Order: sequence, then C-alpha cells, then structure tokens
Amino acid sequence: MSMDLKNLNNFFPADFSEEQKAQARTLFLKIFSAEAHRFYGGKMQTLPKCGIYGLNWFNVWYTPGVSKISTAIRDDNDSSFALSNRGNLVAVVSDSTRVLGDGDCTPPGGLGVMEGKSMLMKYLGGVDAVSLCIDSKGPDGKNDPQRIIDFVKMCQHSFGAINLEDISQPNCFKVLDDLREACDIPVWHDDAQGTACITLAGLLNALKLAGKKIGDAKIVLLGAGASNTTIARLIIADGGDPAKMIVFDTKGGLHSGREDIKADKRNYRKWELCEKTNPAKITAIADALKGADVLIALSTPGPDTVKREWIRGMADKSIVFTCANPVPEIWPYAAKEEGAFIVATGRGDFPNQVNNSVCFPGILKGALLVRARKITDGMAIRCAHSIADFSEKRGISADNIIANMEETEVFAVEAADVAQQAIAEGVARVKLSWEDVYNRARADIAAARSLTEDMMKLGHIKEPPAELMEAALAKAIEAVRK
Amino acid sequence: MSMDLKNLNNFFPADFSEEQKAQARTLFLKIFSAEAHRFYGGKMQTLPKCGIYGLNWFNVWYTPGVSKISTAIRDDNDSSFALSNRGNLVAVVSDSTRVLGDGDCTPPGGLGVMEGKSMLMKYLGGVDAVSLCIDSKGPDGKNDPQRIIDFVKMCQHSFGAINLEDISQPNCFKVLDDLREACDIPVWHDDAQGTACITLAGLLNALKLAGKKIGDAKIVLLGAGASNTTIARLIIADGGDPAKMIVFDTKGGLHSGREDIKADKRNYRKWELCEKTNPAKITAIADALKGADVLIALSTPGPDTVKREWIRGMADKSIVFTCANPVPEIWPYAAKEEGAFIVATGRGDFPNQVNNSVCFPGILKGALLVRARKITDGMAIRCAHSIADFSEKRGISADNIIANMEETEVFAVEAADVAQQAIAEGVARVKLSWEDVYNRARADIAAARSLTEDMMKLGHIKEPPAELMEAALAKAIEAVRK
Repeated sequence: MSMDLKNLNNFFPADFSEEQKAQARTLFLKIFSAEAHRFYGGKMQTLPKCGIYGLNWFNVWYTPGVSKISTAIRDDNDSSFALSNRGNLVAVVSDSTRVLGDGDCTPPGGLGVMEGKSMLMKYLGGVDAVSLCIDSKGPDGKNDPQRIIDFVKMCQHSFGAINLEDISQPNCFKVLDDLREACDIPVWHDDAQGTACITLAGLLNALKLAGKKIGDAKIVLLGAGASNTTIARLIIADGGDPAKMIVFDTKGGLHSGREDIKADKRNYRKWELCEKTNPAKITAIADALKGADVLIALSTPGPDTVKREWIRGMADKSIVFTCANPVPEIWPYAAKEEGAFIVATGRGDFPNQVNNSVCFPGILKGALLVRARKITDGMAIRCAHSIADFSEKRGISADNIIANMEETEVFAVEAADVAQQAIAEGVARVKLSWEDVYNRARADIAAARSLTEDMMKLGHIKEPPAELMEAALAKAIEAVRK
Repeated sequence: MSMDLKNLNNFFPADFSEEQKAQARTLFLKIFSAEAHRFYGGKMQTLPKCGIYGLNWFNVWYTPGVSKISTAIRDDNDSSFALSNRGNLVAVVSDSTRVLGDGDCTPPGGLGVMEGKSMLMKYLGGVDAVSLCIDSKGPDGKNDPQRIIDFVKMCQHSFGAINLEDISQPNCFKVLDDLREACDIPVWHDDAQGTACITLAGLLNALKLAGKKIGDAKIVLLGAGASNTTIARLIIADGGDPAKMIVFDTKGGLHSGREDIKADKRNYRKWELCEKTNPAKITAIADALKGADVLIALSTPGPDTVKREWIRGMADKSIVFTCANPVPEIWPYAAKEEGAFIVATGRGDFPNQVNNSVCFPGILKGALLVRARKITDGMAIRCAHSIADFSEKRGISADNIIANMEETEVFAVEAADVAQQAIAEGVARVKLSWEDVYNRARADIAAARSLTEDMMKLGHIKEPPAELMEAALAKAIEAVRK
C-alpha cells in the first residue's frame, strides 16, 4: 500500500461490489485512524517560532526582557497581536455536544475532531490553532449556552479569532450571535457559516453554468439546522428573493403561520425565515420543488430522503445540493437520471464536493492578517464570491463547480479578498493592500507545508509502520465479509 | 555581537561601572525583547506531530476516520490522553493580575510571560503548552477567584495538566486548592509550588554542605506570600520543625496571636502557619535571626531589606536565600562578608540561582507520562530531593548547590522520580518503570531541541537582523548615560 493512500482501492478483494468497497474503505479509515492517532499520540504539538541561540536567549524571551512585553501590552492591549502569537492564533472551541457525525461525545470526545480542525487550519491556511473542548453543563446537568459564552469572553484576549464547532442546536445560535456582539475578535461558527459560505460559492457558479440569476431562482432548502438557516440568510443577503424561497424542517415548510417555532424564543433564526419566506405557506416538499431551480438539502442521510419524482418535477437546468453525510439524501446518479443539471454533495468521492475546508482557513487567515474585530456576513459573502470567481477563472463545468482544498492558491486569494472587505466595512484594526495580504498568506501557507515536509524528511515525524495499515485493512475486509 | 549573546558585556563602554553595565544589560534585554517579539510575531506556534503523506491523510486525521476517535473517547474518557495530544499538553493559565515583576497587566498583558513559559515547557521538558490569559473580573469589576476555578474546570478535559501562573494573592490560594480537589488532572501553581520545590532542593543541599539536619535547623522566612507560605509548608512536610520556624509578613512575625490574619478567611494558608510556627511569638526580625541557621527571603527588593547585622547574628555556617527580583534583599557579597556560609539568589548572574525553571518542566513531564490525577505535596518534595540528589552526584559546593537549567539531564531524572512517587501514592493512571519514564522524557526533550535546531538551520526560523541588536544596545547605553 502506498503511503499516500492513493492506491487503497487496489487492495480490496476483486469480488467486492462497489458498495462493499466503499464500506471497507470507510471502515479501514476508521480502524487505521485509531491506530495512527495512538502511534503519534494525537496530531498537533507546540513549537517555538523564534530563534533560541543558546539559553542566554531566555533572558530575551523570558525574564527580564519579557517585562517590556507585559508593560507594552498593558499600556496598549492591541499590541498583543504583534508582540505575541495572538495575531495568528485561533481557538477551536466546542462543547462536543454534536461532534461531526457522532452527536454528543462528552466534553473530551471532540478532541480528535478539534485537533484535526487545528491541523487543517495550519496546513491549509498557515494559521495556528488550539483545541478547547469544554464542559458546558450547568448545575442542572444541562448544556448551557451562557457558559460557553462566558468561557469565550474570558479567554478572548489570548486569541486572534474564535472558531466555534460542533455545538448542538439551538445553543449554537445564541452562542454565536451573543459572542459576535460581545467579542472584539472574530467569532466564526464553521458548521453554520463555513458551510453557508462554501454552499453559496457553489451555488453562485452553478447558477452561472445554468444561466440563471440568484434573484430569479426559486430555491428550496431541505433541513432547517444551523447550516441551512445560515445558508438561507446569506443567499437572501446576496440577492436571493425570500418570496421565492421555501425552507423545510422536520415538521414541514417554514412560514409565518408556524406558531410552534414562534413559541420558542431560542429558534429566533428559524422564525426570521418564517416571517420572510414562503408567502404561499406551502407545506409539502413535492409541491415546493415543482418548478424549483435549486434544492439545497442538509437533512437526514439518504439515499431515499429525497424522492426521484421530486427531482423530476424541478425546473429545467435544476441544481441539486444533496449534502447529508455519510450518505446524500439522494444518490447523485439518481438525481442526474431524473434530470438534475448539476449535483453537489458533501463527499470527496463524487464530483462537486461542498466542503467548508475550502473556506475557513482562508477567511480566518484574512481576518487575522488585518486584525479584524468581526467576521461580518459581508465578509462571508465576499469569501463565497472569492472562491466562486477563483474557480471560474481556472475553469468550471457542471462536474467541477468550485475549487477543492488541493488548490492551495485559493486560500491566499480568499484571505486577500476577505481582508479588503473587512477594511471596507471598518472592522479591520490595520489596513493592508490586497497584495500585502495575499503575499503574506501565501508565504505563511507555504511555510507551514514546507516545515511539515521537512519534519517528515528529517525523521522528526516518523512514518507509521506498514503493519499498522495492513492490519487495519485486513480487519476492515473481514468485517465487510461478515 | 555574537548571536548567543555571550559576549554582550564586551560592548558596554569601558568607563561604565559594574552597576551601569548591569543596568545597561537589563535595559538592552528589554528593548531588544520588544524588537525581537515584533520581528517573530510572538514565540510559539502549533504544528503537526503526525505524518501528512498527501491530502488523502485528512480522511484518516479528519472525517471520516476521526469518528473512531470521537466515539472511543466518548466511551472511555481516559483514552483521550493517548488518542489526542492531551497527554502531553499543559495549559498555562493566568489572569495576568500579578505578572512577573510588573503587577496587574490587564488580561492580555500576561501573554508574553505565558508564551515564554510555554516555550520553556517545550524546550526544557518536551511538554507542549498553550497560554490562556483570562479575564477574571466579575460584574463588580473585581478579580474573582471563582471565575478562574470555573474556567479551568470547564476546559480541563482538553489538557493533561494545568499550570497556574501570576495570579494575585489571596486569590491564588483558593484557585489552587479548589482546583487541586476539583480536577482530575494535575493543577500546579508554579509561582508557589515551583519556587517552593526548587528552594527546598537548594536548602537540602545547603544543609548537607553545612553539616546540619533539617529537623534541627532554625529557619526564618521573610515574606509570607504564595511562595514563602508554600516553602514553609513543604519544609515542615519534609521534616522541618515548625517550632523552630518563624515566618514574617509586612506586619511582623506570624504566630497564633495574629488576629488580623485569622479574621480574613482567605488567608487560611497563612493562618495555618500562625498556628504551627513561632511558639515564642517573636515579632522582630533581628530577634528571630539571632542564632538562626537559615534565612529564606522572598520579600521586598533590596539591597537593604535585609540588614548586615541581622546576618552577623546568625548561627555558624548560616544559609541565606535572598531571592527578591530584580535586586536581592541583601547583596550576596555583603551577606558573605557578614559570615553567611552559603548565599543563593533568584538571579543567574550570581552563584546559586534558585530558579523554578529547573523544576516545572521535569515535574510536569513526569506527571504527564503516568497520566497523574494530581501533583501531591509528596511529588513536589520528591522532585526537590531528585534535584538535590542529582546535583550532589555531579558534585556540589558552597557556590554550586544545585543544578541549573543548562544541565538537561536533570529534567528526565526528575520526571522519572516524580512519576514513581505518583505511582506509589496511587494518583497515576498508568504504571511505568523508572527507566521507561526516564527514557521517554529524555527522548522527548532531545526531540524538542533537535527539531528547534533544525528549524533554525533550515531557515524555517530566521535569524533576527544584526541591526536590531545593535540599535537596542545603542539605546540602552544612551539611556544609562543620561
């Protein structure tokens, strides 16, 4: 098996069906993941970024020299961005109540995902990151959003930005909205805003390919979680017509008659959509999709959540985002057979992956470089356009609507575009030119990668033994055979 | 000027007195520190510790593979120590209310010191560390120890240990004692326990050289802050006779008649000493020091805080720890002239530096390697003996009573000794042999250093421009001339 895992599919038995291969592949990744995490003892470490030319330098970096840093920051708190690593440091904060695909995993249960996020942050965006999985339970044993808010407010002075992650609904709404107001650094909820940003990017290019305008498009959203409600908000802010939009939760269409949503104040983000969208109060998905231009599904894993006939009833050149994980609400081939023009999913093994990893490293890097006080919706929308435009320039097609995370250049471009938007909206502490941000972001990303390369080359990071991989593969194949 | 700063003294004008040189030296370190921090943008960064052999590995380190980590930790929280970097990760937590030499520096003001501490942690102990400078002010604008306690309890699941730092009195006592009880990981207050540990180590060897026993020694402590009250407690726990001990605060000797101390419950650590020590209720320092074997001063910077005649009145072969910074309570040469047999200070430019940097990287590494639930007083005392014995083996003298932080071997020995103590006291989650801990600690420390070396060698960490140093030197000399 090659160390880059590219030829993995060659090692599954020839008699395996495609579905068995897919199962064995996922199982291999999980089993091997556990072994690999144990082998390395986790994924991220801390290291100096400054020279230590003998222990005399501790007199510069620590006492007595460091006294000058303490007093300088005391006298001007903003100098902390330049005099400490704060200016390039993001806290990845989660209460582990809705960990990627696995629900509530207890406070430390999110560490694997948050450390992974920190790794993506550095490797893709040249941004340092620290994982903080916290216990948000109050004295009554319930997860209390106010505790997360208080926690972040207390430690915000140590970071350049906060990335909220995997916090269950509806707590995540209050946490994000309160912290966006309360903090003097960007607070980003990647599950909602990151997904919304990359989805909007994909939608923009899909509409270009379909020859449709966002203001004319009839858009149906299936699922009214943190991601989809944020997607709806950004689409509307970017020119979508709320009167042509219908959003569905598990109880039907959102509209101004939904007293159940109005009754629970914590659902204010959903209620905003009830007031704005679906004036005809349509309640059946099949009805909503008749003649619709766009379906954005982030709901229950399929493959039968979205019916073939629903797709069949959509308008010409229809656009279908079927993004549930691990199994999309409808298989892409099925949607295509029913006439969908463009199909996107959350998975890397189908065309058109909609993946927030293309978004958050760039938007955070841009925000950090101009020491932004916030990431506004305007900056998120600008980021979506940045990704869409970058992708269009290098060429798009129905099976390739947006850049993927292997296209490293996209992150520096996003950073520069987002930084300019922050400056224009008056939320940047420092003003830098597009080129300055672009060059700095590009250099930092290249530096993170080349250092990681060198660490592997010089043996500071060792290769895992081949037997670990082989054993994991054997176990995966055996389990699928049973 | 050489990059290792060893020949710094050659660059001060020939007409400078020793005191002017010392002033210029400190000033240079401060001015250059600010420039160097700005040049690098802080001191610490985050980096992968695991292999990334192409982006396919994100399927192992992130979704879908990482799901196995989330569920494994959910089902057994203790597996988080092995499956994430938690097992080697310390949070350096401060509310920046008493930052090293500079008092209250506002929440971000401690970042320079805490990042420095994180650097020492990695470079000396092979331990990863994250700086968390937090705002402990409550709604009334006062720093509230309960807020620090709640904060640490919330994030303890992300770390293998907590290092409290630079928290003002009396809050620091409550924070430490409550957290030691409440957390299932070690909570270490380096200002108090680290200083106590290294002071005890120095005292043990000084007593050996003086031919005295700890239980027979008449010990006077000047200053009753967090450090000295902890030093007193550890000395008593290690065989010191409280009836022969006298502790002074700014109002005089501590004894059972000190109603002012008794009245404020937050002073419980001081009150414990009032009850145990100084049965004769001596209130004058001069009286206390008559015939005393040991003076441990951690009080007001001198050089005249401790009078020459006080030292003159001490017993034969007297031991004087004069550890105020930046200027000791009495100059070492003055104490020696008055008959002191051994003099130790907090400074690196006199013999016998008492510096907690020799202690905390080793004790925390040992605690982490056996996944200790606590650092007990027994472990701190064992660490002190470990340092003392290590130093004795390689040879001690009146001007060289304990190892300094250049003696890298001492940290691995401490780690191994402390780990064995943790196992013996039943606070270790895993049992490892002395050799296993020693070898692992030694390898991790060597790895941290050789990686840092390679980062400098390969240009991932650049040398600061010589002009930065030269300009700082010129400014320092000019300022002293004025």
